[in-house]
Amino acid sequence: MTAATVLDDRKKRTQAAFEELRDRICAQFEAIEREHSGQLSELAPGRFERKRHERPRVDGKDAGGGVMSLMKGRVFEKVGVNVSTVNGRFSPEMAKTVPSAEQNPDFWASSISLVAHMQNPHVPAVHMNLRHLVTTEGWFGGGADLTPMFMEQSVEDARDFHAALKRACDAHGADYYDRFRKWCDEYFFLPHRNEPRGAGGIFFDRHNTGDWEKDFAFATAVGLAFLDIYPQIVRRGMSRSWTEEDRDRQLLRRGRYVEFNLLWDRGTQFGLRTGHNTDAILMSMPPVARWT
Amino acid sequence: MTAATVLDDRKKRTQAAFEELRDRICAQFEAIEREHSGQLSELAPGRFERKRHERPRVDGKDAGGGVMSLMKGRVFEKVGVNVSTVNGRFSPEMAKTVPSAEQNPDFWASSISLVAHMQNPHVPAVHMNLRHLVTTEGWFGGGADLTPMFMEQSVEDARDFHAALKRACDAHGADYYDRFRKWCDEYFFLPHRNEPRGAGGIFFDRHNTGDWEKDFAFATAVGLAFLDIYPQIVRRGMSRSWTEEDRDRQLLRRGRYVEFNLLWDRGTQFGLRTGHNTDAILMSMPPVARWT
Repeated sequence: MTAATVLDDRKKRTQAAFEELRDRICAQFEAIEREHSGQLSELAPGRFERKRHERPRVDGKDAGGGVMSLMKGRVFEKVGVNVSTVNGRFSPEMAKTVPSAEQNPDFWASSISLVAHMQNPHVPAVHMNLRHLVTTEGWFGGGADLTPMFMEQSVEDARDFHAALKRACDAHGADYYDRFRKWCDEYFFLPHRNEPRGAGGIFFDRHNTGDWEKDFAFATAVGLAFLDIYPQIVRRGMSRSWTEEDRDRQLLRRGRYVEFNLLWDRGTQFGLRTGHNTDAILMSMPPVARWT
Repeated sequence: MTAATVLDDRKKRTQAAFEELRDRICAQFEAIEREHSGQLSELAPGRFERKRHERPRVDGKDAGGGVMSLMKGRVFEKVGVNVSTVNGRFSPEMAKTVPSAEQNPDFWASSISLVAHMQNPHVPAVHMNLRHLVTTEGWFGGGADLTPMFMEQSVEDARDFHAALKRACDAHGADYYDRFRKWCDEYFFLPHRNEPRGAGGIFFDRHNTGDWEKDFAFATAVGLAFLDIYPQIVRRGMSRSWTEEDRDRQLLRRGRYVEFNLLWDRGTQFGLRTGHNTDAILMSMPPVARWT
């Protein structure tokens, strides 16, 4: 295979892997909606709805786009899964901040992003994201983090979430889990509140060991670890009943989630300032949030 | 009087004017709470509660602080009025962005900030702010803007709000209203939604004509125009009944308000990044907001 064919093959496999992961996650989440028998089970089970969004064409050329899958259910109050595959050319300012883009500003990127806000305050919210960016180099980024509404009641959830991610990390690099867990703690932190967003997880970026197959396998493993553990956490918590007071506390925690995403999340800030699809970026917003 | 005495006198008069304006606004809003007889009048009328916040001392010296007045009522779902008077020294990076601060980074600032989120979706939310900053120069900034939940039903509110501000402007400078109205439209705009925050108003900054008395009188007049017109707008709308659908639309509009304040408002971004009192800055957050 020529270098161009190899590159093309990698792009196709990455996009296909992200789309397959999306399909499996959506199927799992819909199964959970159907089997729910606790509080709010008088409502109809949620189903994902898909909506395609296109990036504006540049110089008459297709710039890619994505598919947003959104479900508003009786377990998942709001969950969005966005898979985008885009291409284009970085602006000169952007190119300065991206490895190797100054020489050649063309880029290709595919990503899957997921945020779930749950009806039951005893079930943690969650975020998972994987992305592959190709310029003259190629690297992976992403991670997953858990946001319990009641930290003290979610010790087991946090422990199992971390253990699943650690297994995925350990299979690919001895120091991955420690490095990426710390990176996550640093990233998902609200300086103005001096508090973490939640119970952490892992976060990695510009991950390129020089072995594409290995890095692709690692990114895929993170997605599968999420697919394995989060449904378990949901099933464990979704039958617990909750009070108005629990709900209030949940909505206040969601206010903090909004603060983090709009004030500090570099992905959100970057996306909104570079003309990406606003609805796709802000699918991370909770359906409802409170402030005191 | 010496130059220092003159300066000291101006600071005292500004702070006193902001505190007096706050007291008069709070008295008006509490009167509205008591006289309310429409939807939600089965609830007790709201009363303002005051809470003092201090800035951390710098080198053992008092750095000032403020008083947050907060009311959660049956007309005013949440209204905060914060009056702060602080002093200190700009960091070298900050000093570069502030007129005349590079020579001498000492500053003194007094401000009043108000944000009201209303129970009744037919009553527009509102924001008003006045500030006086003194370095080796001194200038005023501030403004007021109205955020109707239903633009098409608030034509009269928007017209009267603008008319009141225009009168205050016209009495002090022939071009003030046009300049400050445009500045407001530019400032309170959500680029990622390509929509204005609301119906506008006026916004001005670094206002220093060289005649302190005149500038002080103008800032005071803006505060009094607000005190005159906003209670009229509230009284006009608060007896209108509303539906669940109206409420939903109101909560979605509030989501946009959150987006503006956290993503784009320079005051919020600046305040949270420079260690100001987080609760005082985020009193602008609505009590509850929705996203689709």
